[in-house]
Parts: sequence; structure tokens; C-alpha cells
Amino acid sequence: MKSSIDCIPCFVRQAADAVRMSTSSDEERKRLMRAVLEWMGDIDLDASPPAAIQMIHRRLRGLLPTDDPYRAAKARQNDFAARLMPSIRRRISESFDPLTMAVRYAITGNIIDLGAKNGIEFGDIYSALQSAPIQPIFGDMTAFKKAVTEAQNILYLADNAGEIFFDRLLIEHLTGTRVTLAMRGMPVINDATREDALAAGLEEIVEIIDNGSDAPGTILEDCSPEFQRCFEAADLIIAKGQGNFESLSDVSGNIFFLFLTKCPIISARSGYDMGTYVAANWFGRMDIPVERGLQ
Amino acid sequence: MKSSIDCIPCFVRQAADAVRMSTSSDEERKRLMRAVLEWMGDIDLDASPPAAIQMIHRRLRGLLPTDDPYRAAKARQNDFAARLMPSIRRRISESFDPLTMAVRYAITGNIIDLGAKNGIEFGDIYSALQSAPIQPIFGDMTAFKKAVTEAQNILYLADNAGEIFFDRLLIEHLTGTRVTLAMRGMPVINDATREDALAAGLEEIVEIIDNGSDAPGTILEDCSPEFQRCFEAADLIIAKGQGNFESLSDVSGNIFFLFLTKCPIISARSGYDMGTYVAANWFGRMDIPVERGLQ
Repeated sequence: MKSSIDCIPCFVRQAADAVRMSTSSDEERKRLMRAVLEWMGDIDLDASPPAAIQMIHRRLRGLLPTDDPYRAAKARQNDFAARLMPSIRRRISESFDPLTMAVRYAITGNIIDLGAKNGIEFGDIYSALQSAPIQPIFGDMTAFKKAVTEAQNILYLADNAGEIFFDRLLIEHLTGTRVTLAMRGMPVINDATREDALAAGLEEIVEIIDNGSDAPGTILEDCSPEFQRCFEAADLIIAKGQGNFESLSDVSGNIFFLFLTKCPIISARSGYDMGTYVAANWFGRMDIPVERGLQ
Repeated sequence: MKSSIDCIPCFVRQAADAVRMSTSSDEERKRLMRAVLEWMGDIDLDASPPAAIQMIHRRLRGLLPTDDPYRAAKARQNDFAARLMPSIRRRISESFDPLTMAVRYAITGNIIDLGAKNGIEFGDIYSALQSAPIQPIFGDMTAFKKAVTEAQNILYLADNAGEIFFDRLLIEHLTGTRVTLAMRGMPVINDATREDALAAGLEEIVEIIDNGSDAPGTILEDCSPEFQRCFEAADLIIAKGQGNFESLSDVSGNIFFLFLTKCPIISARSGYDMGTYVAANWFGRMDIPVERGLQ
């Protein structure tokens, strides 16, 4: 999907976040933001949001004293998520339909997204966890469950740090199937890289690859040949988060998107209200009114 | 107060709002936003947010096909507020302490601010109205009431369209005193101008002036000599909203700021949590920890 002019404030906010986390000098922050704004006018709004953000953060990395301003934030998110896991894992295993419950929690984890918001209050996460077990999932959970049962070779596209722990809980329920987990190739915003997958101990249960790209999404032509081969070979792709939706919603393939609608643009584009839990297969649906169904 | 780099995303969002409301052509919107971003790097962040926004919207008006993109939004906000008035007026007059209750509603009206957010859902206004009667007012309501009782000549600095109807309810309780109501001199964002004061029928109860400025705040040196004389002559100034706080918090004088804290920067600067109802006299308090008192 293309970017909208309403994505620009978010792009600028992400840049301000990166600048703020990279230096504590007020003068330096202002100088950096002036530089960012100067070349912000060149953004190609016909590109998807992850492609636009990729360009912005590539240029930012050239200016900032660190190549990963979000490192400390990601570590905090991982630590926090790790502490939540034992009780959530028990809740899932004790539920009537563990796979659906694991999907609910995997989508809940999608709240940990510094692309959509510049801070995640732990209180917000707790409150999302409270409502998680009773959240309706919109889209087509029946088709998702069938796809999971039939799949021989699942490619799981991760999204953010912290969230990756929640993804693990879902992956633990994708049993009897080969699962490959793909991480971002390089740090960008708080997107999860191989380091975060290792923090969640995922190397114990799946094969981990990275996509070779520094976009906060999955821009196929920008990904490594190895990743592209995995993408082609998979008979089911599970794509987590808005960034993967934004970059893959026009791509053909058996792709299920799992995400929480966190911005008005994604809400309008997907046809789901803000704050909706979505598990949907998208290809070919973009130009028709999106059916809304309570699962 | 100076602007922060964290104000910039909001400046860009306000510009995107103005562009969106001025043209429905996607191509034109993108062209305009590219132009905005190109000169956005020149913003003087040592200026207060209203001064920075003033510069941005002056330049925007040169590009847009209308000099008041928010006209329709302001008319909707006025219509909506007008319908709420009878029941709120009754609620205030029946309360134990009508002046304090009128302050609560005047601050509640401050939610109608397209500077702080790009859309006000009517549901949000209703929900704010539900909690309004029991909202604690932080700052110093005792001092405010004393100041109102003692004042001979009050200058009331209005803030936004829609909100001006809520201001009227408070002004109706500033009895036995000469009250002058100052509006913005020209349209900027959804700030209230003389037209909005007339929509609320305020010419029946007070003298209305305008400040001669197109800033979404009160930048004294930018205001007309007539306004400056009124400002000097007043023995109490009631300044509504964040924009007036941002531009007057360092100015000496018997100024009471009434506002709702709607952004993290104002929250940090004022020392009050987000969503706090504030009625406070500020001068000389900025460098010391702000006392928090429940009234």
C-alpha cells in the first residue's frame, strides 16, 4: 500500500524518537531534526510506509552517533515480555482452544510497537492483557486454523521486540509443521532482529533466518535471495504487524496477516476499526469492501 | 516556553490537516506536503509553539486555495457545543458551587482542540462531559476565586471554536465585573475568532475585541496596540488553553491559566499529568517544582 500524507507526522515522530534516544544535547537534537526535515520533502509517498521509513532511517543512521538508537528500548521490552510469559503460557494451555488463544496473545503483543506510538506504557500492556482472552478476532480464524493444519512449511514473519515473546507462544502451537522464523535483517525502530529472537530462546524450537533488509516491513525485492527462496517455498506465511501488512497486502500468496489496527490509515485501508484484532488473508480483497465478521 | 523537537510531529500533523481539508486531490496534497516539509527545516525551535505554528500557517495560507481550511470544522464544533449548552448551564446553576463548576466545564471545553489532535470524536466529548462534574481542578482554585471576586477588569483570552460556548458559561458567572473577551485576530487552526464569539452570542454579555494576531496563542509583541492596552489595563487575565499557556507562561501579570493538559510536553512543562484540569497562576513558578494540590 502507498503512504498517505497522514503518515508523514508519524515518520517525523519516529525520527524525533530516534534523535531523542541518540543524544541528550538539546542543541544537537534540534540540529539533527532540522537536517531530517530538510530532506524529508524528498520522501516518495507512492512507496509503502515501511519503504519510506527505511529511507528515512538509513539517512538518519548516517547522522546519529549510534546505528541502533532503540537498543535499550528493545532490551526493556524483551525483559518485560519475558516476565509475562509463564502466566500467559499457562492461560493459553488451559484454554478451550489453545491455538485461537495463542493468536489472541500474539496479536496483543503487537501493541509493543514504537513505530505506531512513541512510548508504550506498561499500564497499556497490562490493560491489553486483561482484555486479551475475550477479544474477538476479525477476519477469518476458521480459514487460519485450517491453513495451519494443512501447512507443511510455515514462514513466520516477526515484527517487534517484546512482541517476539508473544509470537513464541503462538509458534509453540504450530505443532507438527516445519516453521521458519524470519527477522528483520538490520535494526530499524524497535523491530525485532535475530538478537531479539535469541533473547526469546526461539532457536530452540524453530529455524531462524533474517530477511536481509533494513525496512520495518517485508519489501520482497529488498530482501535477501535466501529469504526470497523461503518465501516462495512456504505454503503458509504468517505476517505479524502493520509493517508487514503495509508491505505485503498487495502480494499474492497464502499470507495470513495478524495485527492490531493501531492507526487511522491502517484502519481505513483494512476496513477494521481502530484497536481491532485481525487475522486475515488479504490478496485480492483490497478493492472491495472488506467483510467484517466476528469469529 | 520554547518549542521542543517533540513538537515538530504535531506541527507537521497540523499542516497535513490543513492540506487535507483544503483539497481532495491526492496529488495536490502530496505536492503541498512536500513544499511544507521543504521549509519546515527553517522553523525556529527557540520560539514558542504558537510562534512556530504561526509561521507555518502563514506560509501555508500562501499555498492553499483557502485562507481558513478549518472553517467547516469550526462551524461543526460551534453547532455541536450550542446543543450541549442548555443542559450544562442548568447543571452549573444547580450545583453547590456554580463558579467552580463553570470552571470545570470551561476546561472540559478545551478538549475541542484541533491543534493537539487531528480529530475530536463526539464520543470523546461526551465521555469528558460525563466526568466533568467530578473532575478535581489542580493548581489554585481558591486563589482563582479570590482573584475573580477582587477583580474590577477581567480580560478573558479565548482559545478554540466550540470551546467558546463553554467559556460563555464561565463568563456568565464572572458577575459584577467588567469582562473583555479577546479573540484571535485571524483564523489559525480551529482557534476562535470574533465570528465564533458571535456564534455563541457573547456580544450580548461582554465587550469582544480581537488581539490582531494570527498566532494560536497570545504573543504580546505580535498583538495590536489596542489589545496590548487592554492587557496592561486588566487586573486579572484568564488565559484559556495550551496555546495561551505556551505563549504567556513566562509573562508577568495576574494571569490565571485554565487548561486541560493534552500533550506530554505541556504535561512535563507544567508538572501536571496528562488529562489534568488546571487552573493556575504561573509567573515565577517555572523553575521550581510545581506544587500539586487537589482542590
